[in-house]
Amino acid sequence: MTFELFYWPGLQGRGEFVRLAFEATGTPYVEIVQGDGPGQGMDGLLHTMDDPACMHPPYAPPFLRVGDELIGQTANILAYLGPLLGLVGESPRARRWVNQLQLTLADLVAEVHDAHHPIAGRLYYSNQRAEARKRTAELIDYRLPKFFGYFERVLANNPLTGGWLAEGAMSYADLSLFQVIEGLRYAFPRAMSGFAKAFPRCQAVRDAVAREPLIAAYLTSSRRVPFNTTGIFRHYKALDRASPF
Amino acid sequence: MTFELFYWPGLQGRGEFVRLAFEATGTPYVEIVQGDGPGQGMDGLLHTMDDPACMHPPYAPPFLRVGDELIGQTANILAYLGPLLGLVGESPRARRWVNQLQLTLADLVAEVHDAHHPIAGRLYYSNQRAEARKRTAELIDYRLPKFFGYFERVLANNPLTGGWLAEGAMSYADLSLFQVIEGLRYAFPRAMSGFAKAFPRCQAVRDAVAREPLIAAYLTSSRRVPFNTTGIFRHYKALDRASPF
Repeated sequence: MTFELFYWPGLQGRGEFVRLAFEATGTPYVEIVQGDGPGQGMDGLLHTMDDPACMHPPYAPPFLRVGDELIGQTANILAYLGPLLGLVGESPRARRWVNQLQLTLADLVAEVHDAHHPIAGRLYYSNQRAEARKRTAELIDYRLPKFFGYFERVLANNPLTGGWLAEGAMSYADLSLFQVIEGLRYAFPRAMSGFAKAFPRCQAVRDAVAREPLIAAYLTSSRRVPFNTTGIFRHYKALDRASPF
Repeated sequence: MTFELFYWPGLQGRGEFVRLAFEATGTPYVEIVQGDGPGQGMDGLLHTMDDPACMHPPYAPPFLRVGDELIGQTANILAYLGPLLGLVGESPRARRWVNQLQLTLADLVAEVHDAHHPIAGRLYYSNQRAEARKRTAELIDYRLPKFFGYFERVLANNPLTGGWLAEGAMSYADLSLFQVIEGLRYAFPRAMSGFAKAFPRCQAVRDAVAREPLIAAYLTSSRRVPFNTTGIFRHYKALDRASPF
């Protein structure tokens, strides 16, 4: 089975949540935009996404091609990959729980994006600076405490997980929680300075993921695109603020 | 099996996507906030959601209780109910496709909400009118055409669906598409005046769902909360604008 990942070049974005699942498990995958053969590169991505003959087209990257099937929407991709890669439990109930966590993380990711683009994703940050300052203040002062308070509670409530979000082992939701914390640390170093103390269990998940041998190797490889101001998590000094934690 | 739905009273909100699945299939369900027994009403909702002993708590309503399991996140609830209620095909591939469509609709729903609350969900609309005007203009002029252009293309590309979004029969994604169109017609009557002509296949899904006998009965029942300005879809005259379609 060949996993072909379609995502924009030059940024981690939502593609990174899928990459982490492949990398954590040593699963080979092809980055279509990296290739220069036929059907690869940026043209390959756009033609595949916009193919008028496609009966099940994705709305946007990231999407995966497996055989003749295109699978879009990050949480949907991970719900598909999780069982194949051993990143979610066997039971339907365990899978529902991890999917639920992933969707809550996806909501947070969308809010992080909109903090620097509160008016229009198609316009530049510089066209919406004043609004971005207001919305980022909300994100940092109210939304991050609410979301991480929830995940901290999940981790505290369940004595059966060994420190992971779901019972028994690291799941793809743990990988995504790691990515969100890393992204926020990059974007808002001042605000996140109080994070480890306020949310020690979330921090422990982040640390445990970072210590996974395959993840540790990936993070120092050239495959890990550095965070930058074209992705979801952006560092604009004017938006960072004192830690609310 | 008893399905207990936990959602805020007085608004359709995201709970409505779950209600439509129950109503379309004549499936009995209990609205916890409507009850006045122990564990019901608003107190029942809040206690269940915030129960410190719960190992798998939901982040927010809507959530479902089935036996001792709580299932949160709208798309996760529908992915669970779909097979039980006959609102999605049998194959894993069919279920992935409908889940993908549902997640794209969920993204649109979040954008519709943020159009009237672009800065902070916890503050009133009146605190962010100027920003709401800007973001709603973006929603109407750019985002709605992009999202509905996608769904129209999905409907046009696939000769096997009989006019539904997925092969063979009405799925829960069709019910959600209906709800989104209805909500937008309420919120933005001027902008949506050109909708049926621009997106005839989406409109046909809306009409077909509205004609389903159990849905038609539900829509005129007292169980259907009227659209109002506490939900996701809000009619503020200052935000509506000329149809871009």
